[in-house]
Amino acid sequence: MTKKIILMGATGSIGVQTADIIREHPQKFSLVGFSAGKNMNTARALLAEFKPEIVCVQQEEDAKTLAREYPAVSFVTGTKGLIEIAVYDADILVNAVLGSVGLEPTLEAIKLGRTIAIANKETLVTAGHLVMDSAKLYGATILPVDSEHSALFQALNGEKKDQANRLILTASGGSFRDLTRDQLQNVTVQDALNHPNWSMGSKITIDSATMVNKGLEVIEAHILFNFAYADIDVVLHRESIIHSMVEFQDTSVIAQLGTPDMRVPIQYALSYPDRLPRPNAKRLNLAEISQLNFREMDYTRFRALQLAFDAGNAGGTMTTVLNAANEQAVALFLNEKIKFLQIEEIIERAMDQHKVMANPDLETILHVDAETRKSVRNMLK
Amino acid sequence: MTKKIILMGATGSIGVQTADIIREHPQKFSLVGFSAGKNMNTARALLAEFKPEIVCVQQEEDAKTLAREYPAVSFVTGTKGLIEIAVYDADILVNAVLGSVGLEPTLEAIKLGRTIAIANKETLVTAGHLVMDSAKLYGATILPVDSEHSALFQALNGEKKDQANRLILTASGGSFRDLTRDQLQNVTVQDALNHPNWSMGSKITIDSATMVNKGLEVIEAHILFNFAYADIDVVLHRESIIHSMVEFQDTSVIAQLGTPDMRVPIQYALSYPDRLPRPNAKRLNLAEISQLNFREMDYTRFRALQLAFDAGNAGGTMTTVLNAANEQAVALFLNEKIKFLQIEEIIERAMDQHKVMANPDLETILHVDAETRKSVRNMLK
Repeated sequence: MTKKIILMGATGSIGVQTADIIREHPQKFSLVGFSAGKNMNTARALLAEFKPEIVCVQQEEDAKTLAREYPAVSFVTGTKGLIEIAVYDADILVNAVLGSVGLEPTLEAIKLGRTIAIANKETLVTAGHLVMDSAKLYGATILPVDSEHSALFQALNGEKKDQANRLILTASGGSFRDLTRDQLQNVTVQDALNHPNWSMGSKITIDSATMVNKGLEVIEAHILFNFAYADIDVVLHRESIIHSMVEFQDTSVIAQLGTPDMRVPIQYALSYPDRLPRPNAKRLNLAEISQLNFREMDYTRFRALQLAFDAGNAGGTMTTVLNAANEQAVALFLNEKIKFLQIEEIIERAMDQHKVMANPDLETILHVDAETRKSVRNMLK
Repeated sequence: MTKKIILMGATGSIGVQTADIIREHPQKFSLVGFSAGKNMNTARALLAEFKPEIVCVQQEEDAKTLAREYPAVSFVTGTKGLIEIAVYDADILVNAVLGSVGLEPTLEAIKLGRTIAIANKETLVTAGHLVMDSAKLYGATILPVDSEHSALFQALNGEKKDQANRLILTASGGSFRDLTRDQLQNVTVQDALNHPNWSMGSKITIDSATMVNKGLEVIEAHILFNFAYADIDVVLHRESIIHSMVEFQDTSVIAQLGTPDMRVPIQYALSYPDRLPRPNAKRLNLAEISQLNFREMDYTRFRALQLAFDAGNAGGTMTTVLNAANEQAVALFLNEKIKFLQIEEIIERAMDQHKVMANPDLETILHVDAETRKSVRNMLK
C-alpha cells in the first residue's frame, strides 16, 4: 500500500530530505501535497517530479503563476492554505516548517486523527500539551522526526515506558563546542553556521551553536515521551553517532546509532512500524570511526541549555517565551544586529520579564509569542 | 506472581549470580530446585537460604549426607538427576552448567514447553538445531543469558527480524588482546586467567583469551536468531560497554549498553518481558567512561575465531568437534600439559580430521563429542 504524504515545509532542509525518501520508495510513498513558502524553483521541481494534488505557497501571485503552469493542481496560499493542505486527504502529515506557523495546521490535522511526523519542534515546545492532549482525544499518532527523538522512540520500541528510568540525549556541542565563554564573545555568523556533523538550515545551526536546539529537544522529549525534566539527561558526544539513549530500571541502556543522516529518522517516521532498506546510505562502521567520546554537560558553559530546563520546569507559557525570544534573537544575530552571546542574554531577559500562565490555550500562546517578539525588539531600542 | 526457577549449575559463576538475582527479588522469583556438582559448601548455603524442593548433586554419597540434614528436600544424582530437576515443576529452567552435560536435560525440559534461560553455550553450539527445532515443536521459549545475546535479543525487541541486516557482536579481546601472536608463544595459565573486564569461571576466561568464546557466541547467535554467518560481524570493543548491536535495513543500529555485570542479562532472562529495578547496581555513566573504542577484528591474530566461523559454515557435526576439541584442549592448558597457542592448533587439527555429518541426531552428537575428545588426547601421545 502506498502511503499518501502531505509535506509542510518542502523547501527546507528536512523537506528536501523528506522528498529524497519519497523518491527512493515510489511504491511506498506518494507526495500528494506540499507547502513551499517563497522558493518557486524548488516548488516547480517538486510539482514536475511528484505531480501532487494540492500545493500551498506563501503569496497569491506565485499561486496564480503556478496555477497557469499546472492547471490540474489546486493552489492555496498563506496560513489558511497551510491548514487546507494539512487537512487534505492523506495518511501522514509531515510538519517540517520552521517556527510556530506549523502549530494551527497540525492541530487541525490531529482533529482528523491523522498520523503526524513532526520535525517542527516549535510546535511541540510552545503548545506541546495542546498537541498531545488533542492527539490522545482524537486518536492521532505523533511520530518524531528529529534524530534524537527518533532514537528515543526506537529505543522505547517494544518496551514498557514505566520501566524506563531516564532519557539520555546526546549533544554534538555545535560549532563552538571547543570554545570557552570568553572565546564566544566575538564569534561571527559565519563561524556559527559551520556545524561539524550535520548540514542543516541556518536557524537550527545557530540553535546548535547556542545549545538552544538541545534545550528545545529536551522540552520536546518531555512532551513526546512524558518524562519529568529530572529524568532527562544530556551528554556531550562530539561524533553524533549515538543519536540518543534510554536507560531502563534494570540499568540496561538501549541506544540508536548510525552515520549522521537525517533521512534515516525521516524515513523511519514515514515507514513506521516497518523499516525500509536504504541501499545507498552509508552504513555505520564503528571500527572505521574508531572512537566515541562523551563528556559531562557543562551548564555554565552552555547557559542556554540551562535556560531551557528552567523554562521547561516553569512550564505553561514559559517555553513559548523561550522559543519566541530565541527565534527573534537568532534572526537579529543572523542580521548581525547582536552578538552571539546576546542570544542567551535576550532569552534570559525575556524569561525574567514573563509571568507564567499555566496550561495556556492556543490564543494565549499566540498572544505570548507575539508579545515576546515585540519585547525582544524593544530591548534593542 | 512468583516465578519458580530451576537452576542447573548453581555453584558456577552464572549460577551464583542467578542466585543473587533471585535473592534481590523474593516476591518475583523462588528457587525451587538446583544442581550443585561437588561444591557442598555452596549447596548447603543455597539449601539453607532458598529452601528448594529438589536438589541434584554429582555423587551418591553427598546426596545421602545432605538428605539427613534436609529431610524435606528430594536429592537426586548424576546425569539422571540433572534430567529429573530439569523437568521438575517450574516456570523457568536456567541452564548454567558448563559443557555438553546440559544438553539432554534441556531437551527434556523443552518437551514440556518450558521457558529455558540458556547460559550453557555448548548446548546450543553442539546441538542448536535440535534445541531450536524442538523448542518450536513444543512451544518452548529459549531466552539468552550471555550478555552479547541478551543485548541482541533486546535490540531485536519490538522489531521485525526480517528487517534486520546483521548482528554485530562486540568482543573485549580477552586477557591477551594487546599481544601479538609472537608474544602469545609463552603466556602462562595465570596470565590467561586475568580477564580485563569480566570476572568469570576459568574455562570461559581461557576461551575469552583464545577468542574461542566469541566464536562459540557467533555460532550461538546464528542458532538463536537464525542469521547467516555472513550476516554476523564481530568488532573489538575493549571497554565491553556496548554488549552487542543489530543493524537494520534502514542503516539504524540498535545497541544495548551497560556497566559490565552479568546479573543484568541474567535478570532480564528471568523477568522478560518485564524489566525489574536493580537499585544497587552501577548505572552507566558514559561521561565518566569518557571514551568507547572500536577496532576491526583481525582473523589472523585471532585464528580461533576464524575456526569458529569455519566450523559454523561447515555446519552439522563440525561445531561439536570445535567445542569438544576446545574443551579438551583448555583442560590440558589449565593442567599445563600444552601451551596456549596449542589450543587452537588442536582445534584446527580435530576439525581437519573430521568428516562432517549433516543434521546429526543426539546420539551422533554425543558420539562425535566423545570421539573428538579421544582424538585430542591421542594427539599428545
